[in-house]
Amino acid sequence: MTLTGNMLIGQHAIAGCREAIRAINPATNNALEPAYHGGTGEQVEQACALAWSAFDSYRETSLAARAEFLEAIANEIEKLGDELIDRAVAETGLPHPRILAERGRTCQQLRTFARTVRSGEWLDVRVDTPQPQRQPLPRADLRQRQIPLGPVAVFGASNFPLAFSVAGGDTASALAAGCPVIVKAHSAHPGTSELVGGALARAVRHCGLPEGVFSLLFGSGREVGIALVNDSRIKAVGFTGSQSGGIALCKAAQSRREPIPVYAEMSSINPVYLFPAALQSRCETMAQGFVTSLTQGAGQFCTNPGLVIAIQGPDLARFISIASDLLQRSPAQTMLTPGIFNAFESSVATLTGHAQLAATGLAAEGPNQCQAHLFTTQARDFLTDHRLQTEVFGAASLVVQCASADEMREVTEHLEGQLTATLHLDDNDIGHAQALMPALERKAGRLLVNGWPTGVEVCDAMVHGGPFPATSDSRSTSVGTAAILRFLRPVCYQDFPDSLLPSPLRHDNPLALRRLLDGQREA
Amino acid sequence: MTLTGNMLIGQHAIAGCREAIRAINPATNNALEPAYHGGTGEQVEQACALAWSAFDSYRETSLAARAEFLEAIANEIEKLGDELIDRAVAETGLPHPRILAERGRTCQQLRTFARTVRSGEWLDVRVDTPQPQRQPLPRADLRQRQIPLGPVAVFGASNFPLAFSVAGGDTASALAAGCPVIVKAHSAHPGTSELVGGALARAVRHCGLPEGVFSLLFGSGREVGIALVNDSRIKAVGFTGSQSGGIALCKAAQSRREPIPVYAEMSSINPVYLFPAALQSRCETMAQGFVTSLTQGAGQFCTNPGLVIAIQGPDLARFISIASDLLQRSPAQTMLTPGIFNAFESSVATLTGHAQLAATGLAAEGPNQCQAHLFTTQARDFLTDHRLQTEVFGAASLVVQCASADEMREVTEHLEGQLTATLHLDDNDIGHAQALMPALERKAGRLLVNGWPTGVEVCDAMVHGGPFPATSDSRSTSVGTAAILRFLRPVCYQDFPDSLLPSPLRHDNPLALRRLLDGQREA
Repeated sequence: MTLTGNMLIGQHAIAGCREAIRAINPATNNALEPAYHGGTGEQVEQACALAWSAFDSYRETSLAARAEFLEAIANEIEKLGDELIDRAVAETGLPHPRILAERGRTCQQLRTFARTVRSGEWLDVRVDTPQPQRQPLPRADLRQRQIPLGPVAVFGASNFPLAFSVAGGDTASALAAGCPVIVKAHSAHPGTSELVGGALARAVRHCGLPEGVFSLLFGSGREVGIALVNDSRIKAVGFTGSQSGGIALCKAAQSRREPIPVYAEMSSINPVYLFPAALQSRCETMAQGFVTSLTQGAGQFCTNPGLVIAIQGPDLARFISIASDLLQRSPAQTMLTPGIFNAFESSVATLTGHAQLAATGLAAEGPNQCQAHLFTTQARDFLTDHRLQTEVFGAASLVVQCASADEMREVTEHLEGQLTATLHLDDNDIGHAQALMPALERKAGRLLVNGWPTGVEVCDAMVHGGPFPATSDSRSTSVGTAAILRFLRPVCYQDFPDSLLPSPLRHDNPLALRRLLDGQREA
Repeated sequence: MTLTGNMLIGQHAIAGCREAIRAINPATNNALEPAYHGGTGEQVEQACALAWSAFDSYRETSLAARAEFLEAIANEIEKLGDELIDRAVAETGLPHPRILAERGRTCQQLRTFARTVRSGEWLDVRVDTPQPQRQPLPRADLRQRQIPLGPVAVFGASNFPLAFSVAGGDTASALAAGCPVIVKAHSAHPGTSELVGGALARAVRHCGLPEGVFSLLFGSGREVGIALVNDSRIKAVGFTGSQSGGIALCKAAQSRREPIPVYAEMSSINPVYLFPAALQSRCETMAQGFVTSLTQGAGQFCTNPGLVIAIQGPDLARFISIASDLLQRSPAQTMLTPGIFNAFESSVATLTGHAQLAATGLAAEGPNQCQAHLFTTQARDFLTDHRLQTEVFGAASLVVQCASADEMREVTEHLEGQLTATLHLDDNDIGHAQALMPALERKAGRLLVNGWPTGVEVCDAMVHGGPFPATSDSRSTSVGTAAILRFLRPVCYQDFPDSLLPSPLRHDNPLALRRLLDGQREA
């Protein structure tokens, strides 16, 4: 397949006519062909009109048909073969094995949502049967199901060109819920986006779905994105990216005549707690795990361990010393884009003025390479200098040295909302950790023991979310099967004849769902 | 018990020192003692500090203890006896039997949430067991539960002084979720609020809960309300009232450093569709049912049938004529407050200039009495004059006469979001109704067949919600047990030792919950 530089408005490949985007190979700073011209307001409007016209039909596809569609997308992505892998490597600077693994994750994610769709649990069917004899008033027959919100605008992330992009978690969960999707492609990997968009559009066609179920738009500035969010036919937004970008979308969505939900996954520094007994007993292992997690993928993960919190003393000093030694031997790694590299350099320069530099990794040997940084500070300084809580996107972390367990708690209460918090502990630390648990639960979406926050499993129990500013909506997760719940709303049907009821609510329960029937869950 | 005019900040009865509120008996226009002075910013801050300090402890109460607390509130409300009923009648002008029934509903609602809390289904426990041998990477042990958002600010409604007020649905569902509640009392029924607030505070004490679990504040303007919403310790808002009030709270909540969810139930005109066969076969019964629903409680319901949609012709003319006859014999009824009465008069005057007056009810014989109004208009006019969609709070309705089934669909697509939509149909209308279903599902939270929208059952399947501007968040319901879901967020625990896990997630499943275990729902 030859890349064309076209957008996809339904089944139509159409060129934009705004400013051109070209991907940059960050390892060489060379621009990659073809050029992707941004969409116009009219093209955004065409995509929205198509999505709207597809909505009523797509949302009533059977569970089986919708699951097969998700599986067809995965199959079509796999069929792209090496062309997809090579292009994604060229556009992101990420290593070949990482992109291969990410493709696996992306396809598994689509298949997991297919399984979730088939189960029908997300329909949350509730039935209260009539009580015609009840005094003083009879009770009607009441039945509830979940229906999709409507067309969803998805803004992919730069750091996962497959798993959080065109056919990533937001798209998969919105399609699973029954929402048509319009993706605004990330400008850092337009070729990867075109390839995956083509696979998605082919799955739409093969499954005989209305073409408006999926469109893919390009745009260099915020014009296309804001036009999408402002369109009255868009009913929800999924976003993974910077805090400023996420907040701008939230403001736009709230300023509409009809405000809509925005699920923005934005920023997190992912505190890692090293408790005293663990620090004493396995300082070296922890330092190794820490540096591996910190430097993996040049630190370009939402769950990168950007903050270490521990009580000062010889054990912590040893941890810092071992981690520094390891870091000094870590090679610099190519970052995703020149823009991300420049932002990293500038964030690190700011931190250097506010914290003590403990170690740096090996120097860069090519363009846009991230040199890892480890800083230390005192809890007192951390508590008074808000800049020390700013996310540095890349391999940089800050060790906060606390004078006491009380100060550790104070630092914890001072933290902003996080995607994750990690506890390294031994049996003797349990009491200590218990005292922090209430605060940690209030602060983060996922809590880990004796692991590292990078690595986000796609499963039922995952939460990739958390209080603001980690996300714009702590009630949700953007990874895992519960992500489907973001795009649904309940509708109640009162005294409906069977012939008018949607199938999940019919009296003979044709989908064999475990309904909440008169207050009892069916077996 | 003697009313004191005091607020409740936890267990402390404290007088405000801002402008005084006195309830007005709308049947006489007489002011009722005592005066309720509004709270200060400092008092708001005290209530928030108490709620915050109570949160971590209250949210970990056992399911049994929390359910008993909700039941204790119901018991304490019942113990208030006639004093509560008499005061509520005096403050609202609502008839004695209605207030008696509403007390029953309020207590039943609290007991229903107790049952819901005990079931534990709302914890949505998901467990993915570890796969240490998985290639290329092992899977961790992952467990998810829902935890409460934090202290909730509740703004009660004027039209349900018990069921949607101090101990109403928002308070009951937030307390059920594990959130402390601060109620800003509605200024129309401060005495009723003081009585119920006292009952709630006694239940807190008897159950040995931290006092910050509940506070009750008064305030005449928006000062107390906005200060509450702006306090960083408040994590969600429940509101029932006007569109302007709800939107103001949403804006305040979105302007915070940490935006928070607002569940505002605002305005709805609740379209009622009369399909041709039904209109022909039982025009008179429908007209009777319509006028009863329209005039009940002076039309002061969120679900009042403010819009009738049908195809013009002799059957519809007969419906209008019979309904007009009935309406002309309907006595005027006292409205809740002089302010609500004035707003009704002014809305009716506006409608009179834009639609045709078909009939009015009997004239008022006392102050603040609502004279019922029935208007008619043509679909063409309805489609072009947005004022005809404005909610009139009170017994007024508008019949929209459509030229065809197509025009009926056009009118439907033109509607704003609604709490309800009602279909009156016979077997021969099913096809006609089916064609409207997709639009109706997109427009409303609850769809009814051959009933009337007034009367909102508190049960599992109820949806009292709907797209904007019916509510600020279509993903939720403010009535029924699913209302608890508004105040929760998921947290994931990865590789936790049993000793650190919260009880719903422990390996031996001590709460005997039906978990989603490795993708399968437990039996």
